[in-house]
Amino acid sequence: MQLFYQPLIQDGALHLEEDEARHAIKVLRLKVGDAIQLTDGKGNIFRASIDKIDKTTCSFSVKETITIPKRKFSVHIGIAPTKNIDRIEWFVEKATEIGVDEISFIRCQNSERRVVNLDRIYKKAISAMKQSGQAWLPKLNPIAPFEECLKADGKKYIAFVDSRNPAHLKDVQTGNRSTVLIGPEGDFTTEELELAIKNGFQKVSLGSPTLRTETAGLAACHILNLINA
Amino acid sequence: MQLFYQPLIQDGALHLEEDEARHAIKVLRLKVGDAIQLTDGKGNIFRASIDKIDKTTCSFSVKETITIPKRKFSVHIGIAPTKNIDRIEWFVEKATEIGVDEISFIRCQNSERRVVNLDRIYKKAISAMKQSGQAWLPKLNPIAPFEECLKADGKKYIAFVDSRNPAHLKDVQTGNRSTVLIGPEGDFTTEELELAIKNGFQKVSLGSPTLRTETAGLAACHILNLINA
Repeated sequence: MQLFYQPLIQDGALHLEEDEARHAIKVLRLKVGDAIQLTDGKGNIFRASIDKIDKTTCSFSVKETITIPKRKFSVHIGIAPTKNIDRIEWFVEKATEIGVDEISFIRCQNSERRVVNLDRIYKKAISAMKQSGQAWLPKLNPIAPFEECLKADGKKYIAFVDSRNPAHLKDVQTGNRSTVLIGPEGDFTTEELELAIKNGFQKVSLGSPTLRTETAGLAACHILNLINA
Repeated sequence: MQLFYQPLIQDGALHLEEDEARHAIKVLRLKVGDAIQLTDGKGNIFRASIDKIDKTTCSFSVKETITIPKRKFSVHIGIAPTKNIDRIEWFVEKATEIGVDEISFIRCQNSERRVVNLDRIYKKAISAMKQSGQAWLPKLNPIAPFEECLKADGKKYIAFVDSRNPAHLKDVQTGNRSTVLIGPEGDFTTEELELAIKNGFQKVSLGSPTLRTETAGLAACHILNLINA
């Protein structure tokens, strides 16, 4: 069943947002009395029934609330957004499907893109959450300088491709809160790498082929899910 | 260094194809005497030097050939192409980056897309191979009925979401040649599932969230790489 999104249900917002109301009315042709399912992206699934429909609004009342606990491990990816924004939007969509708790966008010395439109990226995450039937929306942090990301808690890793061949993330990951930093197209600078290591980050590999930024981000996210699930 | 693609070098084709010649001349502004690197997608990397450039052609002579052996395991993904072809092209790009040996497109009972343009998809695979510095181009098989895919050799798996919760691919995978079948948006039918099992396929899970077809394909590919690498 289609999952709708209303983050403010528990604050009393018992109507669909404009886009979803239009979809419910015009595409799904839902009627008063029909059952719908919603999530607030905060761990709740609501079974509801439609009370009122007019041209552009659709309100409902909640019949049942199902609370899905947060999973026991937490995945945080810090990633330098790619020049082509589609690639980073794709990363957010796929990471949300596979399972990610928090995504931070980082501005590095070699970053070609220094701004991101968080609203647009949130839309991708919401759509992926609904599509994959999940009740938790990942937290997305606005772009911040590299140094900000070093303050992460839990186990901390930095993906870095070099000839000294660091250990694979799949073999070193421990702990139930992990952050992995993924560099921009031109990779982290030696200075950034050293700063990260000084701040308790461990250098890791994601495997032998050279992966694009967004592929590396997803590979890291998938590995952390496979190991902890 | 930029990697060019010329599949017929060992058959004597010592020139770049039109698109790449244009890129070499107009964008990279390469000159006679400059060094280039090429692959034939068949395990060879060629170090070459440019002999002749004119408006649209660029020919070279090979100075050195480096042969990269095929890896010891082989990953074959059979996947039902998605209605939105961008999603399957994305899958091919990402699987090539991460490592895939063969991709078969399958036509299922619930398939919304029944044709694929293999030339266009090959272009994505070639671009991803070059981008990630690899020397082996995956084999892409034209779309064929579901029954054709059942003839695969090696270990055979079918990804299927059901309440009986099959074993996770990461826990069951063995053998150095593996095929995983990934169903269409509407999943495999019970009939298709039973037919696969009769033909020696094992039902596997790829984890708990419901993944889109292209995400499931990539997750399966990544798991086989992680386990075998």
